[in-house]
Amino acid sequence: MSLFVALVHHPVRDRGGEIITTSVTNLDVHDIARTARTYGVSGYFIVTPLPAQQELVERIVGHFRTGSGARRMPERSEALKLCRIAPDIASVRRHIELETGKAPSVLATAARGRALPVSYANAREILAEGRPCLLLFGTGHGLAPAVLAEADGVLAPIRPAADYNHLSVRAAVAITLDRLIGE
Amino acid sequence: MSLFVALVHHPVRDRGGEIITTSVTNLDVHDIARTARTYGVSGYFIVTPLPAQQELVERIVGHFRTGSGARRMPERSEALKLCRIAPDIASVRRHIELETGKAPSVLATAARGRALPVSYANAREILAEGRPCLLLFGTGHGLAPAVLAEADGVLAPIRPAADYNHLSVRAAVAITLDRLIGE
Repeated sequence: MSLFVALVHHPVRDRGGEIITTSVTNLDVHDIARTARTYGVSGYFIVTPLPAQQELVERIVGHFRTGSGARRMPERSEALKLCRIAPDIASVRRHIELETGKAPSVLATAARGRALPVSYANAREILAEGRPCLLLFGTGHGLAPAVLAEADGVLAPIRPAADYNHLSVRAAVAITLDRLIGE
Repeated sequence: MSLFVALVHHPVRDRGGEIITTSVTNLDVHDIARTARTYGVSGYFIVTPLPAQQELVERIVGHFRTGSGARRMPERSEALKLCRIAPDIASVRRHIELETGKAPSVLATAARGRALPVSYANAREILAEGRPCLLLFGTGHGLAPAVLAEADGVLAPIRPAADYNHLSVRAAVAITLDRLIGE
């Protein structure tokens, strides 16, 4: 299986639909790294164009990779080894292509349904064929429309019929990886 | 469906297996409330014996229920309405029995496997029969052995065969509710 996850901080939407850059959250780095490691994901990219934010991620990851955190919490260190920093989604694609020798299938995610979503069964087939796959998750109020338009597909929403659909991105990543990979 | 979730801060284990009381984390309150609301859970109990910690939860929930947070982020308010505070697991059981008229089936969760775990299919049957069900999740390094022993059953671990199994409790709740309730 060759599955990569990217947590996108730009371009994403705010509450009103404007395109913004969100701040990196310490807990997103940790929680999603632990989930990614538990499900055998090949890499977890934290996407932000802001150099100060990239440095923040370096510090968080460095503390647990080589600092006192690594000794105190070795399993945290193990998960954070998956973290990589990228300035934009195009860089993530290039990185995966260099690493795997193949251009990844890029699947975006969204809380609201699209006209022709990619089912979880479809996505599992892509993975079973051994093709690299990149899952994009948006912070803020979700990925920018341009990101959804440029992706190879948009994964079906997690709870399409629910009257309430405001999962945290941490929960959405966990559920999505469980549906694609399971036990 | 009559499903309740409890996030237990005591009695839980620390890294070395000692029984401790963990601190309430702001993000656990929010994240798990949003997940619970998204999956139609009937109530989300935050279990801590410490009065100062109970007051902290009251403040977090109150800010978003009636304070400026409720106006600014109405969907957060909607999720936090599910939150209740309890001093111990016995109080949660009594509360559910009073509310539903039936004693709940209490299912504990653990990252490591037990001899006779309750499968997700079994748990879905309990829910389908309309019996109230209480899921217990431990903070720290998991629920105390006494809690596992006193529960009606222990749900199968999420990734029994994985070489790494350190999901955050937020991720574990999300995956478990998705497996029990799904789309």
